[in-house]
Amino acid sequence: MLEINADRLLSDLYDLRKIGTYRTGVHRPTLSEDDVRSRHWLVDKLTAIGHEAEIDGIANVIGRAPGDGPHLLAGSHIETQNQAGWLDGALGVIYALETARAMAESGRFDGSGVDVIAFADEEGHFGDMFGSHSWIGQVTEEEIDAAVDRTHGLPLRDALEKAGLAGRPRRQMPDGRYIAFLEAHIEQGGWLEANDLTIGVVTSIVGSWQYRILIEGSQNHAGTTRMSMRRDAGVATTRLLQAVEREFPKIANELTVWTTGRITLDPGAPAIVPGGAEIIFQFRDSNQAVLDRLHARLEELVAEEDAAGPCAARLEVVSVSKPALMADPVKEAFNAAAENLCPGKHTLMPSGAGHDARTLAPHIPCGMLFVPSIGGVSHHWSEDTADDDIVAGCRVFAAAAADLLCKARS
Amino acid sequence: MLEINADRLLSDLYDLRKIGTYRTGVHRPTLSEDDVRSRHWLVDKLTAIGHEAEIDGIANVIGRAPGDGPHLLAGSHIETQNQAGWLDGALGVIYALETARAMAESGRFDGSGVDVIAFADEEGHFGDMFGSHSWIGQVTEEEIDAAVDRTHGLPLRDALEKAGLAGRPRRQMPDGRYIAFLEAHIEQGGWLEANDLTIGVVTSIVGSWQYRILIEGSQNHAGTTRMSMRRDAGVATTRLLQAVEREFPKIANELTVWTTGRITLDPGAPAIVPGGAEIIFQFRDSNQAVLDRLHARLEELVAEEDAAGPCAARLEVVSVSKPALMADPVKEAFNAAAENLCPGKHTLMPSGAGHDARTLAPHIPCGMLFVPSIGGVSHHWSEDTADDDIVAGCRVFAAAAADLLCKARS
Repeated sequence: MLEINADRLLSDLYDLRKIGTYRTGVHRPTLSEDDVRSRHWLVDKLTAIGHEAEIDGIANVIGRAPGDGPHLLAGSHIETQNQAGWLDGALGVIYALETARAMAESGRFDGSGVDVIAFADEEGHFGDMFGSHSWIGQVTEEEIDAAVDRTHGLPLRDALEKAGLAGRPRRQMPDGRYIAFLEAHIEQGGWLEANDLTIGVVTSIVGSWQYRILIEGSQNHAGTTRMSMRRDAGVATTRLLQAVEREFPKIANELTVWTTGRITLDPGAPAIVPGGAEIIFQFRDSNQAVLDRLHARLEELVAEEDAAGPCAARLEVVSVSKPALMADPVKEAFNAAAENLCPGKHTLMPSGAGHDARTLAPHIPCGMLFVPSIGGVSHHWSEDTADDDIVAGCRVFAAAAADLLCKARS
Repeated sequence: MLEINADRLLSDLYDLRKIGTYRTGVHRPTLSEDDVRSRHWLVDKLTAIGHEAEIDGIANVIGRAPGDGPHLLAGSHIETQNQAGWLDGALGVIYALETARAMAESGRFDGSGVDVIAFADEEGHFGDMFGSHSWIGQVTEEEIDAAVDRTHGLPLRDALEKAGLAGRPRRQMPDGRYIAFLEAHIEQGGWLEANDLTIGVVTSIVGSWQYRILIEGSQNHAGTTRMSMRRDAGVATTRLLQAVEREFPKIANELTVWTTGRITLDPGAPAIVPGGAEIIFQFRDSNQAVLDRLHARLEELVAEEDAAGPCAARLEVVSVSKPALMADPVKEAFNAAAENLCPGKHTLMPSGAGHDARTLAPHIPCGMLFVPSIGGVSHHWSEDTADDDIVAGCRVFAAAAADLLCKARS
């Protein structure tokens, strides 16, 4: 059993929270001054335990443990959503740090160890997980040229320049060095808490489809246009969305989720029959066949609304991601460690949110471990996890990492 | 038969369109420089035909015909919605001007005539028809103190000061002078055009109820919050609105209209289950009993959604207006003149939009006459009416006015 230092773990998390504190959370958007400070803070921590650490040309922090034997890659991201929580991302980075440190201290893993990584921009301030995609060679210079911060419109190039990272090489995952990538994260939902569980071992990360649904009717005066003469885009919108609510449960899995995040009626005035509408819609599942049939059904429902009239309806795919299965050996290691340390307090579960592990899963065996989110809250400054759960999660994480490395060395 | 001058009528309308031209329409919001110019232009026109004309302390233009015999009050409003049409309001003012002018020229109405009025702010830039409400004594100084322009936030007091109207008395309708108020207007709907009609004689102006419906759910991550644990304010919104679409036709009249103008999901992000929603809803009918039962049904539907859960739903009344019946003698005068001048090309119809005549109807017999709107368009710069229809409408308007005055004098 690899022993972690609980006080040191919590102390590191508290220190990291001091960089960009916002109420009880933090505000560290990608490449903000506080984000860059936190990356240098992490480099110093890694250097102190003998890792060769750097921030690369996309702002990934990479800390390489000594030796050329089998290694694990572990980490998560360090930037946050705006005015958000202190653990989303940071928890996984500090678990990796503490595990690497405990392993180095133990002296039992000569030539092997845990490389720590803090990916840049998992939270998507500039794009779609640029850090982990760069790490597997899927980001071009042109994509970086074109990217701008979604809040301020600052070009990514200018942000990298300001951070002193312009011109640095972007590191890619070396062939053959890693037996697996391990990522810990807060659950961001209320399932573990509601079921009095401490550890979630992730089976898969859901894939998702994101859409814009566009309704075109006729804008008219709401007092003088008789009902029979109307082409009301708002009425078509609510009818279509109720059809989705009626039909999706018939073909969804137990854990499928779907969400209408925004409805915009045009022009949106009290006394005007809406002439247009935009619906922002998405669904997620960990089974590709389910995703495919939900997409097909949605296409049918939109086509039916369009054909029935009086409004035109059109479906636009905004983005698609595939589900990623977590690797069996990692799941088994997490599961065994959890049963040992938290007997009966763990469960297998899918991840409804996307993570860097989804990006890496096609290239390397991946595993994820969840700890409970109080009230299921995340992406908000009030996000939190009980200290006991934070410590328990790291114990399981470190034990599983040690187990995987031992097996690879033997 | 009172003869109007068709060329002069159209020429006045064209001249008025030159003040604040926007594409083929006009932009003359209440108390803008162009609006104030148009009011002075009207004062000059009225003075030229021997009326005692002024702009009062709320910016109503009033032109009094000579004499103390029976008079008609006629007019509409002269300001416009932003970037809107050239006839909405202006048509009724110029019909009144041309009728008053033709009557003065005829020499047949000594001691009687048509007082012309252009009410301020029927279009609601600062409030709810301040001009006509002030005219019947229903606006307090405190309400004027509190009013601001809905586009720019400019206080009404400052706008009146800038227009040189601060401190002027606000005129109120004199007792006993008027036998009726006559208002002509474009239809603002497509009914006359679709039925190849020239004249609509208004039977009533609809009353309306305006609402905010507030839904309260729980904001959550759209990936990690299972469907069974959600309190999705967006789903409750579409379910409630579809219930309205299902239930209202069962209890509505043939000409009842209802409209959802805006739906706002909070926070309105693609990957967040909406925790709140605001719906802007209204309905209109010319029958008070219908309005009452629609209101009762809406209250029930919101209460049912609230009781069924999982979201809370609450109904807030924003404003209420009562339907206003047009006076029989005025309807009969319009109808007789229309049958004489446009046989078979006229109809009785309610007004789905509110007008100054609704404000005055409880205090004085009122009548309204509609001419066709091309394509049913209004509140848009492309609003238009065929010249022939404009002329025909004024002929009917003037003939009815002369008929009413003759009867009152005899």
